[in-house]
Amino acid sequence: MEENTYPILDKITSPDVLKGLSDEETQALCAELRRFLVDKVSKSGGHLASNLGAVEISVAIHKVFDLPRDRVIFDVGHQSYVHKILSGRRDFDTLRKPGGLSGFEKMSESEYDAFGTGHASTSVSAALGYAEADKLCGRDNYTVVVLGDGAFTGGMVHEALNNCKKDLRLIVILNENEMSISKNAGAFANHIAHMRSSRRYLRFKRVTTRLFSKIPFIGAPTLRLLRSCKRYIKNALYGGVYFEDIGLKYLGPADGNDCATVEYLLEEAKRRNTSVILHLRTVKGKGYPPAEENPSAYHLVGSDYSGNFSEHFGKTLCELARDDSKICAITAAMQDGVGLSDFAKNFPDRFFDVGIAEPHALTFAAGLAAAGMKPYAAIYSTFIQRSYDNILHDIALQKLPVRIIVDRAALATGDGATHHGIFDVSFLSAIPNLCIFAPATFESLDRFLRASAETALPMVIRYPNMKENDRIKAAFFREESNETVARADFADPEENLAVIITYGKITTEALAAAEKLRAQGIPCGVILLETLKPYSVVADKVARLLPKHAAAVVFLEEGIKSGGAGMLTFDALRKRHGAQMANKQTELLAIDDNFVIPTQNEPIYRTAGISANDLLRTMVHLLAEIKKNISSDS
Amino acid sequence: MEENTYPILDKITSPDVLKGLSDEETQALCAELRRFLVDKVSKSGGHLASNLGAVEISVAIHKVFDLPRDRVIFDVGHQSYVHKILSGRRDFDTLRKPGGLSGFEKMSESEYDAFGTGHASTSVSAALGYAEADKLCGRDNYTVVVLGDGAFTGGMVHEALNNCKKDLRLIVILNENEMSISKNAGAFANHIAHMRSSRRYLRFKRVTTRLFSKIPFIGAPTLRLLRSCKRYIKNALYGGVYFEDIGLKYLGPADGNDCATVEYLLEEAKRRNTSVILHLRTVKGKGYPPAEENPSAYHLVGSDYSGNFSEHFGKTLCELARDDSKICAITAAMQDGVGLSDFAKNFPDRFFDVGIAEPHALTFAAGLAAAGMKPYAAIYSTFIQRSYDNILHDIALQKLPVRIIVDRAALATGDGATHHGIFDVSFLSAIPNLCIFAPATFESLDRFLRASAETALPMVIRYPNMKENDRIKAAFFREESNETVARADFADPEENLAVIITYGKITTEALAAAEKLRAQGIPCGVILLETLKPYSVVADKVARLLPKHAAAVVFLEEGIKSGGAGMLTFDALRKRHGAQMANKQTELLAIDDNFVIPTQNEPIYRTAGISANDLLRTMVHLLAEIKKNISSDS
Repeated sequence: MEENTYPILDKITSPDVLKGLSDEETQALCAELRRFLVDKVSKSGGHLASNLGAVEISVAIHKVFDLPRDRVIFDVGHQSYVHKILSGRRDFDTLRKPGGLSGFEKMSESEYDAFGTGHASTSVSAALGYAEADKLCGRDNYTVVVLGDGAFTGGMVHEALNNCKKDLRLIVILNENEMSISKNAGAFANHIAHMRSSRRYLRFKRVTTRLFSKIPFIGAPTLRLLRSCKRYIKNALYGGVYFEDIGLKYLGPADGNDCATVEYLLEEAKRRNTSVILHLRTVKGKGYPPAEENPSAYHLVGSDYSGNFSEHFGKTLCELARDDSKICAITAAMQDGVGLSDFAKNFPDRFFDVGIAEPHALTFAAGLAAAGMKPYAAIYSTFIQRSYDNILHDIALQKLPVRIIVDRAALATGDGATHHGIFDVSFLSAIPNLCIFAPATFESLDRFLRASAETALPMVIRYPNMKENDRIKAAFFREESNETVARADFADPEENLAVIITYGKITTEALAAAEKLRAQGIPCGVILLETLKPYSVVADKVARLLPKHAAAVVFLEEGIKSGGAGMLTFDALRKRHGAQMANKQTELLAIDDNFVIPTQNEPIYRTAGISANDLLRTMVHLLAEIKKNISSDS
Repeated sequence: MEENTYPILDKITSPDVLKGLSDEETQALCAELRRFLVDKVSKSGGHLASNLGAVEISVAIHKVFDLPRDRVIFDVGHQSYVHKILSGRRDFDTLRKPGGLSGFEKMSESEYDAFGTGHASTSVSAALGYAEADKLCGRDNYTVVVLGDGAFTGGMVHEALNNCKKDLRLIVILNENEMSISKNAGAFANHIAHMRSSRRYLRFKRVTTRLFSKIPFIGAPTLRLLRSCKRYIKNALYGGVYFEDIGLKYLGPADGNDCATVEYLLEEAKRRNTSVILHLRTVKGKGYPPAEENPSAYHLVGSDYSGNFSEHFGKTLCELARDDSKICAITAAMQDGVGLSDFAKNFPDRFFDVGIAEPHALTFAAGLAAAGMKPYAAIYSTFIQRSYDNILHDIALQKLPVRIIVDRAALATGDGATHHGIFDVSFLSAIPNLCIFAPATFESLDRFLRASAETALPMVIRYPNMKENDRIKAAFFREESNETVARADFADPEENLAVIITYGKITTEALAAAEKLRAQGIPCGVILLETLKPYSVVADKVARLLPKHAAAVVFLEEGIKSGGAGMLTFDALRKRHGAQMANKQTELLAIDDNFVIPTQNEPIYRTAGISANDLLRTMVHLLAEIKKNISSDS
């Protein structure tokens, strides 16, 4: 089984072994690493193409720097797989599994991960923190950042570069692979491309290191001579007026898939004793023909979103846009993920992929709305955390009718805690003038989308990454109805002692718990919310739906408890329907001040404390309390 | 009184009159506008220096463009005063007063304000929305942005520029005045300066417009000839490889305090039919010697922060930093406002003004903390809305001990709704691993700051812009105590029927209401919180403090109700101390789904529904309900 053996990789038991490899051995190691990646990631799922492109950069960093004393931060972290392998993390069968290897850098996973990543464009800021701290403490550590060109579409990178002082041991590797997650949106890429095309493309392997380094006594001094020849260095390496002006020494561009070149330039960057930007070009999917030819398909292996809410959103928006030329769609580098690929094809003029730039995306949408258009900005829940102020200050305060589509609004599975979509209901509910909807079926989603086309106010429509659920449909959507606030599934409203209120993906857990309670002879109903705000409207509807005999009411929420829909609904119920609620025991089961770090051997709902079993236990406890009270009263 | 008459300004009753002014009249108008600004703003308070610098730019925009059909958006909006005057808003006696003229652009104030501003770096995104909408709708309107160089420190501007397509009628005026709010932090300014110094500094007044335009028959054609001479234009005006690469035609740099030059270049920009960046240089405070010499002092007239919490924070942090070399301080272009001027002077190496870059500020702080430093990031409450994801994803999730100092944590007075500090408790409370403190005295602030120096977890310390309040001190701090969670002011705990729980600036209203109730014979006590999260700790302490006979408990909060401290405290009280709370009526008086737009003739607390009178009415109502229940029971 030659395919699955890694003779050189297996020998790398310490950094010293790696540092001692010859050029040929290093190249062979890179080939093994590629085989390892293709072999493992095609099975486990994960980011393949970007990691194949970053093999030589990762190996060179581990050879040239003294990790973990020096530090490396991979922006986003999805291209850190080789770094993980080289720092002793080869258990890729657990990659992106709960409790397994994270798909990003993670401080708690290894001392080699200097800073946790997941969201884009944070790396330079964090690295700058390390570099400034080193300077203040008189340490001579280096901090290395590996940054894709896509990250430059995010404003934070510019904020950070704007603060890079010349006298830091900070090395920013700009890994230009001409593709951010869905396409390289934006103009900054042109600037980078311009730099590249306007200078000699460097191949150091042949002209310098390789040639000279092997000649004893003569080679090394010649190399030193070459290196000290400032004029040579300047002409050959310098470029990037922009980077030079903002205080970074610019080296490159050069072939980032050539180990010796990358090593040479990293040594060069180290020697500078100054903040350096090193511009390398790599090929996504390098070494694996299928991924080289179609890097987008191999960006995240194992991701199939067909038939989910995102796809249906895109389909319906296309239908609406056909008859309404005001409708525009905006994505922040997630065209495929949010289901807008067909929209982009059919309405290229009205489709805007703004890059990884969520703050801009929302304020741009506000501008479109102010100018009379009907913008739909579709962003993942976890990333819309970056647009909080834009939604508050630019959209809601001015009552501009931006349609905010919050996708992936649930606990994340593969990506882990950095990507949970569990905060949006809380932080969006606190913003005045916003309405929030959580459609549970495609038909409901269509209903809200059609209404949103005519809205004069901002609207939020949120949904998880899931297909339509038959159980939810059967429970709440048996009859045709235009109901948009809440629906009930009660066996017999006259008898229902226990009621669960919920919304979103976790509704399946509520239905499972209700079934179990019924099987135990306890009449239990479920109320499904599809409107979360205005909470007065929600409370009034719930008050109408709540059976007279309901004694125990539990709100189950796949979201943070603090300021979430459960807390707001109960508050409004108490305030507006105090008499009705007075004789009921209530309990809120939501994610309580907890980031929900996935663990092995435990379903995520269990870790979050909101599983069907947690719900069952809570309900049984409440009912027991009620019984106790009744018997002590009588 | 020649000083206070404005003969030309008074004649500007329509845009046509302005457009018809000769060069001499225009210059005279600019002089009148400067007199008007100095005269009015020195009385009313407001941003003086930046508006004096932008007189010619504003006049030229009104002359060259067809407002409000064309649109102008001033970034931040604090330099839009002349724009306001020219669009019929001369009532500067009401400037920055509740219900008066806004200090920023505001859509509801005038059709001439195309987009509301207040927070920095949003203008290009919004303008891009207008420009793209125009293109889609086949309209030929222009959208003009006026952007200070300070705004370039904000990442959103780069995100937006990255999306500027060549074929838009978008004109971005980069108004370089070499000073953002406290100092021009950052490297991008160097790049701009480099552009400036590397090209001929333009004085068009003499060489073109003025010279030729007055010669009948010959002058105008000569001007046209000059303008059509592409080579001339290219050599003289082009520059800015960076801007050209990212898709914007670059014009400049030129003297932005020369009316004819600015008019000429704006006409030139219009003619291009493409996205243009026009680089102008202006002098802050231009025409008013005191402001020219010390623009920082005249940035915001009428702002005196001496003796407030910010100043005391800075003083204490200096003391701590003297003995602890790990302590660093970070501000986002608000060095003076957050009280860090002395720190910057005494510890320049450990002081970081990162520019108007709140997202970077917090992730940079996270990097410093990861590297073992003790970072204090001091940001206004309203601006920390821009760092939500950085606090969540980079600080709290990784439990990095960043000390987040939230300043201006209260309703804003002069700046209005865009600047209210009323959301932070809600959105920060939802983030796990964060502790939130609200010290009410300098001594308390010191206590928290000293504790924070040794914290292993992230901490939030929030306070309003106020001096120490004697009434608050007298009520809660009579005795020496190290209490950090909550303190009570009860006349007689055995008798206290009514209890108010509160924190922050509004505590004065609570004390006033309590006094009135006592005067009416109703024993009323007040509990002051200085810890807001963990809410379990708060609830346990409150439960201990609550008098046995307390029947009515009202939580008064100068913050958004949804997810605020009141809601969380009551929730935790009910959950942890259900039996004790069962016999009490509770009510939460907070800002309920309302942006609190200041109005004339009404104090802001009244508008927000949280005044002493609102509190009094709520409490009396609650007590009446209780009485009714008791009598119906008996």
